[in-house]
Parts: sequence; structure tokens; C-alpha cells
Amino acid sequence: MQTAHPSGVSATIREVGLRDGLQSVATIVSTAEKCIWIDAAYAAGVREIEVGSMVPARLLPQLADTEAVLQHALRLPGLVASVLVPNLKGAERALAAGAHAMIVPLSASHAHSLANLRKSPDEVVAEVARIRAARDASGVSALIEGGVGTAFGCTLQGEVAEAEVLRLLQALLDAGADRVSLADTVGYADPASVSRLFDKALHLVGDRLRYAHFHDTRGMGLANAYAAWQTGMRGFDACLGGIGGCPHAPGASGNVATEDLAYMLERMGADTGIQTPALLQLRQQLQHWLPGETLHGSLWQAGVIDGGAKPAPLAATA
Amino acid sequence: MQTAHPSGVSATIREVGLRDGLQSVATIVSTAEKCIWIDAAYAAGVREIEVGSMVPARLLPQLADTEAVLQHALRLPGLVASVLVPNLKGAERALAAGAHAMIVPLSASHAHSLANLRKSPDEVVAEVARIRAARDASGVSALIEGGVGTAFGCTLQGEVAEAEVLRLLQALLDAGADRVSLADTVGYADPASVSRLFDKALHLVGDRLRYAHFHDTRGMGLANAYAAWQTGMRGFDACLGGIGGCPHAPGASGNVATEDLAYMLERMGADTGIQTPALLQLRQQLQHWLPGETLHGSLWQAGVIDGGAKPAPLAATA
Repeated sequence: MQTAHPSGVSATIREVGLRDGLQSVATIVSTAEKCIWIDAAYAAGVREIEVGSMVPARLLPQLADTEAVLQHALRLPGLVASVLVPNLKGAERALAAGAHAMIVPLSASHAHSLANLRKSPDEVVAEVARIRAARDASGVSALIEGGVGTAFGCTLQGEVAEAEVLRLLQALLDAGADRVSLADTVGYADPASVSRLFDKALHLVGDRLRYAHFHDTRGMGLANAYAAWQTGMRGFDACLGGIGGCPHAPGASGNVATEDLAYMLERMGADTGIQTPALLQLRQQLQHWLPGETLHGSLWQAGVIDGGAKPAPLAATA
Repeated sequence: MQTAHPSGVSATIREVGLRDGLQSVATIVSTAEKCIWIDAAYAAGVREIEVGSMVPARLLPQLADTEAVLQHALRLPGLVASVLVPNLKGAERALAAGAHAMIVPLSASHAHSLANLRKSPDEVVAEVARIRAARDASGVSALIEGGVGTAFGCTLQGEVAEAEVLRLLQALLDAGADRVSLADTVGYADPASVSRLFDKALHLVGDRLRYAHFHDTRGMGLANAYAAWQTGMRGFDACLGGIGGCPHAPGASGNVATEDLAYMLERMGADTGIQTPALLQLRQQLQHWLPGETLHGSLWQAGVIDGGAKPAPLAATA
């Protein structure tokens, strides 16, 4: 049973489990299983999915089938299928494959940027300019999104200055990104810092700031999402089953769980278009695809409130 | 390492694990262990603890030693020691034992009230008037707190009207309660409903509304606490290790974890007076006292950010 939407406000949840989730998991999920995942998420109402990453297969064998998965996703009417592209080469693959959007990751933390991307933040900005030129030359309409990670601090560098994050958001847009997003890559954000930074970022770039990406490393994922919601953010990244994380945050839980976030927003009266009980069913399938992996999130334990749609064999996913 | 407190705002966390937590756990924690818990929480900076419940021992054998535990707590300078009292008889025991505060539970859900307390909400209000008379006659200064539970809905009745919750808050104060609190007993609240109800309640009764009590049944515990914080609430209940819950919400995780809540508030710049790393150490002891029980919360997995004070043998508490 869906909740009513007294606020009449829509929210968009982008499923990033197939990219941010699976890249941090050792198990390789088959292309067929990924396609079932995408179909089921689509059937549950999800309309934006980051399906993979255009990186060399030797670096992330889990995502080596990104082109094939993308081709499948592109068949679903109304689904926005995006991919991560670390550089121009990845963007050229994404353009050739027909992705709707390309997410270029940038770490606001200089130290994290060098460790993770082997480039400084400004070198990534320069790469975005090259990607924009390639996109414009190709005649393809794929959107370019600059994803600013470690926006709230990082394990390697510690503090990341708000001014630096804001500078990089503007630099990405100036270099030709169509939109930007902000990510708490390693779980350093709290509701107060989220409120401050998103307020300033929205003031600076308006609705070109499209997605908020939170990890649940210290249990504040939903609280941070609510704080971002309060500033006016309406787009959120999330991973089914709360999978994902960062190689630099060992032992920690992953992204905000899609099912938990969708449920919170629906309970708040927002219209996500998502049927949470269907996501809880899909979460059970995900556990079968990832045997031995600990899934996260909370909703699966108690189930949704109305409709009594607590999926039956929950113990199997514990 | 403590975070700075740029906001200069204080927050109070009342540890309710010894009552709300232990009452839902089958294992009986010894009096000596409870006293160690209280001492360690006090050493970590906790200054309000609900130490037990003045109910017949046959109903809650886990809390049969409440008087002894209370006597221990009363020796700690500056510690506010409260007990739950279900009725006049319990209040007479609390007054005789010298408790600083008595929390009288009331369920705003009529159905939950009858099932759990065997009284209607208004019968509880009448009992509060009798407790006030007994308190005044005794010459003891113990505060009377009316704790309004199932304030956001309940598993038995479903919806609970905001107007009814507000009526009961006022009725409790009119009957002689010194202060009141609001509890999401079974995890039905979301940040929007929290924001609405606490706004209205604070408008109605001001700072006589002292504590917000959230469960983490569907993962929204911290998000709800932040929403209450935003309305101006500065007092929160929490249970170490996220233990607790409600017999009518099976399988669900328990209260907001004290260590997670304290950490979130500190990261937000609030001064809780609590050293979170010390609570993480205490959480490990709690796991030894509750073998086989699943503790909850998130912070213990990743540890606090500054100071690197991730306790060593965390795997033992997984």
C-alpha cells in the first residue's frame, strides 16, 4: 500500500548499487543477474540507474560487462541509464554505447583524489572540459555530471574546506558539466554540515546541483538525507541493501539503502514513484547473488508499516 | 578527541538502556554489572540515567533489583537517576527509595494502552494526579514526568491523532506532572511527522516537553532525532548498543543507540558532555553481559573520526 503524498513533492532516487555497490564487493554478479536487478528495480518504480563504470576490466572485473548491462537498460522506456566515466577514454566508450548520462568523479580532497583517481581535482576539471568537447563533437546528447566526492572530509586528508568544494562545483560547471552532485564518500558528514554545505551549494549553482550521495558509515545516512531534503535537494543516490562503501573506509557499512531511503521519503509524504515492498523482495534476491556479503539497512527487519508487506523468508537474508 | 562546539548549544542524552533496553532482553544482567554500567556511563559523561522500573519482580525479573541499582546511582554526584513507575504503588516505592525523577508511561494509542498498561490513557492521567498528591504529601522533591508513548502510531491501532497526543500532554501537566516526553515506541515516526508533532507540542507546553524518545525500528532513529533537534528539542533518550524495543514490534532493532546519537550531536557541534569513545568501550562490555543478544547501532563498526579511537577487538562484538 503506498502512502499518500500530502506534500505533492517528488523525489528522485538513483540506484547506484550496480556501480558503487558492486565495485566494492569481491563477488562478480553475472550480466544476467544485473539485468534481472535492473528489470525488477524498474518494475518497482526506479527511473534512474547508474549501471556500471567505464573503467578497464582489469581494474574492476565486477563491472567489466558495463556495455552489455547498459544496452539492456537502454531498452526500458523512461529509464535514465548512467555510467561512471573516470576520464575521456571512458567517456568515449559511454558516448559510443549511448549512455544517457556520464558521471565524472572528482575528489574534493586532494589526497583522496591522488590516491583514488591519480589526478588532482583541477586535473579532473580539465578532463571534464575535454569530455565536453568530445560530447559536443559526437552529436550525442549524453549529459555530463561532475560528482564531487569526499565533500565532507576524508580519511586521508581529514578536513575538506567548504570553500574548496564550492570552487570545484563551479569549476566543473564552467568546464562544461551539465550538472553536479555532492557525495559524502567516506561517511564524514553530519546533518549540520550537510545543511550548511548544501545550502551554500544550492545558493551557488541552483538546481544544477542534482544529487546528494550519502554513505551510512556511522549511521547518519538517513539523517543526512533528511538534512539535504530540508535544504531543497530532491535527488538522492542509494544502493539496494546498503551495499557499497569505499576501499579507504574498511569495515564500514555502505551507501544509504535504497529501500530505507525510499521508505523514509514516502513516509514523509514525498512521491518517489517507488514501491518499497517490491524493493524488499529484490533485496532478498540480491542476497542470493552476493552470498556471504553482509547487506545493510534497517527496513527489511521490521517491514513496511501499512499493508503488512513484510516479505516472508526474511531470516534467510539475516 | 572531542569535537569543538561551535554552536555552543548543550544537549542532554538520558541513558534508558537499563530500563527500556533490559526489559526487552531475556538475559538477566546482575546488579553488580548494572552498577559497573552506571559508573562507566557516568565516567563517560552521561548525567541522566533511567536505572530501572518499579514494577512487580514477577513481571520483569530483569529489573527486580531496581531499588539496589538506584541506591548505587544516587551516590554519584550530579547524576539524575530516574525510574519508570507504572502506577501509584510504583511511585510510592520510588519516593521511598529517593529517585530524582519518576517517569509515568502513557500510551496515546488507546489499544496499545489497554494491551500494555491495562488502563485507558485517561486512567493513567488520573493516576498521575494521585502520584502528584502522594509526592506532595511525602515532602520528597522527585520530579514527575509523563511519558507519552506510541505518539506516532502503533502496531495495534495504526494511526494516533496528533490532537489526541497534544490533549494528553496537556492533561498530564494539568494533573500535576512536572514535565512530559514524547516517544515513538514502535518506530512509526518519520522526520516530517516528528517535525510537525514536536513543533505543535513545544508550542503548547514549551520546555516542559523535555525528552524525545525514538526507536530505530526502520532505520530512521537518528533522522528523527535530528528532526526533533531542529524544532528545538535538546533532551533525548537512548540505549547503549541500541538495545530495547517493544514486545509489540518483534524482530525490530531497538532504541536509538546512545553512542550513535551522542556522536551525531557532537559532530553537529552540540555539547553532550559525553566522550563517545568511552561509550564504545562500554558497548563492548555490554556485549559480554548480554551474550547472544544482537546489539545495534553503526558507529562501533567504523569508530569515531578524530583521534582514531576505534576500540581494538571489535570483531568480538559483531
